[in-house]
Amino acid sequence: MGGEFDLVILGAGSAGYVGAIRAAQLGMKVLVLDPEPPGGTCLHNGCIPTKALLEVSGFLRSLNEAERFGVSVPSFTIDGEKLFSFRGGIHDRLTRGIESLFKKHGILHLRSRGALCGPGLVRTLEENSQEFRTRFVLLATGSRPRSLPGVPFDGHRIVSSTDLLAIKEFGGRLAIVGGGAIGCEFADILSSFGSNVLLLERESRLLPSEDRELGMVLEKEISGMGVEVRTGILALSISPDPSGVSISFGNPGGKKEEARVERVLVAIGRAPVSEGLGLESVGLSHRKGENLTVGPRGETEAPGVYVAGDLAGSYQLAHKASHEAVVAVETMAGLDPRPLDPHLVPRVVYTHPEVVSIGWVKEEAEQQGFSISEGRFPLMANGRSLIEGNRRGFFKVISDRASGRILGFHGIGPHVSEMIATVAAAMAGKEGVKAVSEAIFPHPSVSEAIHEAFLDLTGHAIHR
Amino acid sequence: MGGEFDLVILGAGSAGYVGAIRAAQLGMKVLVLDPEPPGGTCLHNGCIPTKALLEVSGFLRSLNEAERFGVSVPSFTIDGEKLFSFRGGIHDRLTRGIESLFKKHGILHLRSRGALCGPGLVRTLEENSQEFRTRFVLLATGSRPRSLPGVPFDGHRIVSSTDLLAIKEFGGRLAIVGGGAIGCEFADILSSFGSNVLLLERESRLLPSEDRELGMVLEKEISGMGVEVRTGILALSISPDPSGVSISFGNPGGKKEEARVERVLVAIGRAPVSEGLGLESVGLSHRKGENLTVGPRGETEAPGVYVAGDLAGSYQLAHKASHEAVVAVETMAGLDPRPLDPHLVPRVVYTHPEVVSIGWVKEEAEQQGFSISEGRFPLMANGRSLIEGNRRGFFKVISDRASGRILGFHGIGPHVSEMIATVAAAMAGKEGVKAVSEAIFPHPSVSEAIHEAFLDLTGHAIHR
Repeated sequence: MGGEFDLVILGAGSAGYVGAIRAAQLGMKVLVLDPEPPGGTCLHNGCIPTKALLEVSGFLRSLNEAERFGVSVPSFTIDGEKLFSFRGGIHDRLTRGIESLFKKHGILHLRSRGALCGPGLVRTLEENSQEFRTRFVLLATGSRPRSLPGVPFDGHRIVSSTDLLAIKEFGGRLAIVGGGAIGCEFADILSSFGSNVLLLERESRLLPSEDRELGMVLEKEISGMGVEVRTGILALSISPDPSGVSISFGNPGGKKEEARVERVLVAIGRAPVSEGLGLESVGLSHRKGENLTVGPRGETEAPGVYVAGDLAGSYQLAHKASHEAVVAVETMAGLDPRPLDPHLVPRVVYTHPEVVSIGWVKEEAEQQGFSISEGRFPLMANGRSLIEGNRRGFFKVISDRASGRILGFHGIGPHVSEMIATVAAAMAGKEGVKAVSEAIFPHPSVSEAIHEAFLDLTGHAIHR
Repeated sequence: MGGEFDLVILGAGSAGYVGAIRAAQLGMKVLVLDPEPPGGTCLHNGCIPTKALLEVSGFLRSLNEAERFGVSVPSFTIDGEKLFSFRGGIHDRLTRGIESLFKKHGILHLRSRGALCGPGLVRTLEENSQEFRTRFVLLATGSRPRSLPGVPFDGHRIVSSTDLLAIKEFGGRLAIVGGGAIGCEFADILSSFGSNVLLLERESRLLPSEDRELGMVLEKEISGMGVEVRTGILALSISPDPSGVSISFGNPGGKKEEARVERVLVAIGRAPVSEGLGLESVGLSHRKGENLTVGPRGETEAPGVYVAGDLAGSYQLAHKASHEAVVAVETMAGLDPRPLDPHLVPRVVYTHPEVVSIGWVKEEAEQQGFSISEGRFPLMANGRSLIEGNRRGFFKVISDRASGRILGFHGIGPHVSEMIATVAAAMAGKEGVKAVSEAIFPHPSVSEAIHEAFLDLTGHAIHR
């Protein structure tokens, strides 16, 4: 028997480590089980390393665009090793940061995989397995890249986003299957590093689950980077061999095309890690690769067992996972936290320019029976955006005509990831459209265009 | 007699042109008098041209810093003419934008200076003066750079920010008198373009009216750009001659130092333009270079005469001017707009990194008798900020312990101008600290650090 805890958390990712810290703040004795250093997919193979690469791709793109203000940069060189250690430095610093927070809060992290082995019991999955008694369990094992049926990842020719992040040299021709957030971000990164990128999306536009216009504007931007974007196109066969990959694709009922590439990045989504968790020992059922069914605060049918993050379903986003973990842990501690409303989770694609969404797209809001007002503002009419070289971006807000409730907000433009919290905070509050409309926005800023889109709901945007 | 209007506006700047558009939206017949194209100081000599230059200075700075991620840029050239036309292009586009909004709304703009000439009467100040009858007048004549006593601007050796924006070649040694927003922004611009800058501030720190730590961190950043920053230092004498300027300076009671520079930028503030407006014809008194006394909605003691923008006092900021004009015009139209609360006006310094403030600094809040809570978060612990290369930044929020009301927010970091609206909107609403604390912020973003600073108010920031 390895000891007794108030809470054992399986997984030290965005849900697990944040839940551990919040639980410790609330006085709980916490054990975290994860074979990897803390941080999870986000820190090791997701958000952080891709955003580090996107910082560089944004810089490389700015070199090409500097002629617009009269600066010529005749040449530049990239040192792959230095780039790798830039990423490594950020990764190591953030990892050490979490480790020191664990230490400060008295959180024990064992570098083992863990599983439930009965009500109130968790064990490590090793030869000399340890068993722990605990009041609560938080399952936060996250997700892994989904592969295409019959085309397994080999880490070299058929790669996931995780595999690609380990590669130091980019270049050559590469196909990306999937035009969602991950596919688009890698298209941005790889094309700026000199890859010749073919991006295939089976739906009729990029970011098919988001507002229609976002994908259309993003397609123009990404095509402008030299990426060959093909939408409404299925990958029909993908055949790796020692020297490359042959890929055939086409639209259903249309003619078949062939391409020869060095690598294929499969970015068709991520599958929750639900196997090997001992769920049956507490009476929970599951299907491999699917999320568990949970209540509004992450509770399961097994007493004391909660779920947070990708394993809990809905958006696979770090901030959603962290927020869910806080809600679950506060519930364990007897507080009465507001359940996470997926409607209030901002979604970002960190391409150049960035794409943001929160709440419903227009069609969803209409399906819900709302009579909607739409306000919009083009960034072409925003001074700061012109200065930053963006003319295609826009903001769009959808509200309930009757109540003034904000139903959704969608935008594309420079640095918009840093602005979406303005709308997220207003949506979390009770004042709706009024909260944003009555605020004073600084001039000049791209954020002013949020204000204008909100004023446009009632027809009194100033610059439209 | 030139005609009858509902509203005549003197000045087509951020207050005047926005007031004109809002008035037209409300059905008023509007005449704007300004000898210049619409846009005012902000568009022609202020925010927009400086931010265009700061976009370039930020880019030049990024060239030096790209080694951090392994990109070497051995050389670059700046084409001064192209840089000038980049600024010109943005300027022209925004000016034409306002002109077309005037046209669309049926707003008449006469390119003349105007003045009151009796109750309900305005005339143009030209040889063939026209006179107009109007129900309302909005005085929005703005401000101009203040000179040092005995050291008039000559446009060449002793220059204002306006003069400096007309210069195409930077370089050589230059002194800036005044370490407020304008002085710091020009120190950033000029040093990145190769000037050797001496920045003198008579108070003990840069941005002396803002939070103590902001000026201290900004001083480190600006010194790191190669600017020689001297605080607690008075300019004792400034003597221009044909080949340059001799300047002597020192701290009161300390030893005197001498410097020889090519130019001196005097950035000690701006004086409202209150002369020549015919105020006496409607019974209003004024002192040259001082703002008028106005009520909470810009009203004066003269019936129907309102003031907005720099001439109304308080912060000399474009967005404050625009907001005041909207309030004044809505009041004229019989609406009941919420008066502008200076407490809710965000203040930005667009240096690299940017500085933001809203509401009171700690000392002011304490003087008001509040028992305050302080929450803070260092950007060193924020992943996105590390990726963007900023480790010195921070956010700080001050709230009323009793009510949870947000009293002030202060920050320095990358792109923070785009984030301050999140706090501004929460301060405009009624939910205070709760509105920001309960929102979900996207990861990774610098804006998450706002969330953490707010959580820190009650001791439950996650990453601190």
